[in-house]
Amino acid sequence: MPISGFPEWLPAQRIIEQRVIDRIRSTFELYGFAPLETRSVEPLETLLSKGETSKEVYLLHRLQGEAGPSADDQLGLHFDLTVPFARYVVENAGKLVFPFRRYQIQKVWRGERPQEGRYREFLQADIDVVNRDNLPFHYDTEMPLVIGDALAGLPIPAARIQVNNRKVCEGFYRGLGLADTDQVLRTVDKLDKIGPARVSELLVETAGASASQAAACLDLAAISAEDGSFVDAVRKLGVSDPLLDEGLEELVRVVETAREHAPGLVAAELKIARGLDYYTGTVYETQLRGYERFGSVCSGGRYDNLASSGKDRFPGVGISIGVSRMLGVLFGQQALSVSRSVPTCVLVALPHEDQRVACDRIAAALRRRGIPTEVAPTAAKFGKQIQYADRRGIPYVWFPGEQDEVKDIRSGAQSPASADSWAPPAEDLHPVVSGA
Amino acid sequence: MPISGFPEWLPAQRIIEQRVIDRIRSTFELYGFAPLETRSVEPLETLLSKGETSKEVYLLHRLQGEAGPSADDQLGLHFDLTVPFARYVVENAGKLVFPFRRYQIQKVWRGERPQEGRYREFLQADIDVVNRDNLPFHYDTEMPLVIGDALAGLPIPAARIQVNNRKVCEGFYRGLGLADTDQVLRTVDKLDKIGPARVSELLVETAGASASQAAACLDLAAISAEDGSFVDAVRKLGVSDPLLDEGLEELVRVVETAREHAPGLVAAELKIARGLDYYTGTVYETQLRGYERFGSVCSGGRYDNLASSGKDRFPGVGISIGVSRMLGVLFGQQALSVSRSVPTCVLVALPHEDQRVACDRIAAALRRRGIPTEVAPTAAKFGKQIQYADRRGIPYVWFPGEQDEVKDIRSGAQSPASADSWAPPAEDLHPVVSGA
Repeated sequence: MPISGFPEWLPAQRIIEQRVIDRIRSTFELYGFAPLETRSVEPLETLLSKGETSKEVYLLHRLQGEAGPSADDQLGLHFDLTVPFARYVVENAGKLVFPFRRYQIQKVWRGERPQEGRYREFLQADIDVVNRDNLPFHYDTEMPLVIGDALAGLPIPAARIQVNNRKVCEGFYRGLGLADTDQVLRTVDKLDKIGPARVSELLVETAGASASQAAACLDLAAISAEDGSFVDAVRKLGVSDPLLDEGLEELVRVVETAREHAPGLVAAELKIARGLDYYTGTVYETQLRGYERFGSVCSGGRYDNLASSGKDRFPGVGISIGVSRMLGVLFGQQALSVSRSVPTCVLVALPHEDQRVACDRIAAALRRRGIPTEVAPTAAKFGKQIQYADRRGIPYVWFPGEQDEVKDIRSGAQSPASADSWAPPAEDLHPVVSGA
Repeated sequence: MPISGFPEWLPAQRIIEQRVIDRIRSTFELYGFAPLETRSVEPLETLLSKGETSKEVYLLHRLQGEAGPSADDQLGLHFDLTVPFARYVVENAGKLVFPFRRYQIQKVWRGERPQEGRYREFLQADIDVVNRDNLPFHYDTEMPLVIGDALAGLPIPAARIQVNNRKVCEGFYRGLGLADTDQVLRTVDKLDKIGPARVSELLVETAGASASQAAACLDLAAISAEDGSFVDAVRKLGVSDPLLDEGLEELVRVVETAREHAPGLVAAELKIARGLDYYTGTVYETQLRGYERFGSVCSGGRYDNLASSGKDRFPGVGISIGVSRMLGVLFGQQALSVSRSVPTCVLVALPHEDQRVACDRIAAALRRRGIPTEVAPTAAKFGKQIQYADRRGIPYVWFPGEQDEVKDIRSGAQSPASADSWAPPAEDLHPVVSGA
C-alpha cells in the first residue's frame, strides 16, 4: 500500500525525473561543481545543532538491537543536504581544495505530517561553494545564474528567483529600534500565510514593536524590484543603519549581476526571510510562473557560521532545487509528458523461438551502436509483437529475414535495413520529455 | 566523525563512482530496462516476509513522535531492492505492462555489524524482469549477458559470473534420499567458509545424511565447468530425479547461451547456493579476476514466488551489482584513478576584479558549447591562478586579453583562442577514469 508522504512514481514519471536530474547535473558540472554524496545518517547532535528542526528528524534503531538506544550514539536521517555538507567539509578539510564547489543530489527525510506538496522522503539537488576563512561575495551572485541555467533547460514554466538579504532586514529592524530582530524576522516570514494585519498584531504582541514600527516593517516587506531601484524605496522609509547599508549593497550586486546575464530571472523581494536559522546574508526562493501558489521550488542562502572547527571557519553559500516537490506539483497538473515509458527504441520481432540466437545478434549489433533494443519476449504473430511495442511507445519494430526490414509503427513506413548501419533519427533514440 | 559502516567518498572517488553508475545505467537502458525508484522504507511486515533477514532491519521512529511505535505501522529501511520491487509490482500491476523490465540504482541499509567490505549503507544497481503468471526461461540466460556488458565497459578486472540452479541441488539431494533439502543447501552454502570436512560433519549432524550421502553432496558441489560438460559429471554421481533433470537443462541453457555471446564470462559452479530464501531456480554470483578473495560483487537469481496477490503470481529473475562493495574493494587496493577531482576543463583567469563581467561572458560562451568552465575565485598573479587549476587537475587556463589565449598547463603550450570556437581534444572534456 502507498505510505503517506513517501511518493513513488510510475515508470514514465521516473523517466521524466531521471531526465530532469540529468539536465540539472550536467548544468552543475558545466559550472565546475564536483559531484559529492554524504551518508544518509548523521549523529543526532549534528542534526540538532540547528534546534528548530528537531521535531522533523527520523531516528534509526536496529530491530534486533540493544533494548534502548543510548543517547550518545543515536543516528538520524538527514533532513537537508547543507548540514551534512558542512559536517563533511569540517571533517575532510585537510583533503579538500578551497574554495570547494560541489553539487549533491540525494534524498532527504523529514518526519513531519504530510500535506499537499510536502513529503517525508524527497529528492533535493544542491549546489554550494565554501571557502576557508572568507568567501568572496561574487559567489552569492553566481548561484541564481546556475539555477536559472539548470531550470531553463527543462520543459517547465519559467522560474523567477526572489532574493533578499538578512542584513537588510536585521539592519532595518535594528535601525528602527527593535531589539529582537530574530523574532521580527520569524513573524514577517508568516506574511503570505496570515496576512499583514495579523503580522502587525504579532509584531506588537511578541516583538515589542509599536504600531508605527510594525507598519515600517510591513512597508519594507512590500518592496520588490527587478533592478537596483529598491534601494531608493528603502531609503524613503527613513531608517539608517550600517548593517542595512551593507545588505543593500550586496542585494544590489545580486540583482544587477542577474540583470546583466539573465534578464527577468531575478527580483529583489524584501519579504523573503527563509525559516532556517543558519542564513546570515543573501537568501533565495524560487517560483515557477503560473505555479506561484505552490510555493518555492528552489531555496537557499549565504551561511557564514554553519561550519567551523576550533578557530577554522568555513563560510558558504548554496541553493537547493526541491526536485520531488517541483515534479509532484507538475505531475499533479499533468504539465509534463514523455514520448514512451521505456528506453527501448527498437523491438526485434521473433518469428520462431528457434531464431532467438539470430535475433539476439541483431539486438547486439544495434546496441553496439548505442540504439536501445529489446528482443520480443515470445514468438508470436507479428501483429502481437507490434502491439507489444505500441503499448510501451517503442517506435520501431525490426523484422529479421533474408533481408531485414524495420517498421516505424507510428507512420507504418517499412523499409529494408541492416543492423550494422541503420540508425533512427536522433529525436527517436531516447524518450522525449515535453511540457504541457 | 566517520560512522562505522557508512562510507563516504572523497570528491575524486565520487567522480569515479558517478562514472561507474552512468556506464552501468546506460548499458541497462541499451537493453530496454526502464528506470525505477521505490521509496526507501517499507512496512516492517513486508520486510519480515523473508524472515531470515529480520535482524538486519533499521526501524524508523520520529524524534518527537508518539511514546512507543505501534506494531502495525512500523516502517523500516529496505535491505535490498528486490523485496520492495516485488511489492511495487503487485501494488501497481494494473498500471504496468508485462513482461516488465526495470533497473533500480539506490541505497540500501542493513543494521548488521560492519566488517571488512561490509557496509550498513550501500549502493546497489539491480535489473529484474517480471511477468504475470509465467516468465520465459530465456530471461535467465539474458541476465549475465547484460551484467557482463555493463562491467566490461568499466576500467576494472574482468568479471566471472558463476551460475547454479536450485533445482539441480534440491533434485539431487532429494534423489539421494535427503528430505530436508533446505538444510542441506544452507550447510553446503558454508563450504568456502568452513571447508568440506566440517560441511560433511554438519550434514550428518543436522540434515540426517549418512557419510556417503554427505560425500555425494560434496562431490556435486565440487563440479565446475565453462560449458555443458558438467552434465556428464553430475550424471556420473548416479543420482536421478525429475527436478534434477529440469535444473540441469536450465543450467546448460544459461552456460551455453553465454558461451555463444560472451565466451569466458560465465561458468557453472555447482557449489553456489545464495543465502536468501526466495530463489527458486537459477542463481548467480560474480567475482572479479584477481579479487576472488573479496567475494561476490554481483548476485541474484530466479524467484517464482516472491510477488503474488490473490491468485495473481508475478515470477521474476534479477541480478544486482553491489556498487559500493565493488568500489570499496577497488579503492582499497588503489585500483582506480581519475584524471582530475573536478568536472572543470577550463579555468578563466581573472586579471582584475573589475574584469569579472568580461570573464563571466567568456565562461558562458564556453559552457554554451558544453565545456565545463570556472572563473578564478579572485584576481591574482597568473602564477597563482595556474596553481589553482593545477591543484584540481584542471587542464586549461584561459587568459583574457585583446587576443584571448589558452594554455595547456600540462604541456605549457599556449596559443591564441576565441571562446566562440575553441574546443579541447575530446579526451580532455571530462575527467578520465582509469584502472590500475
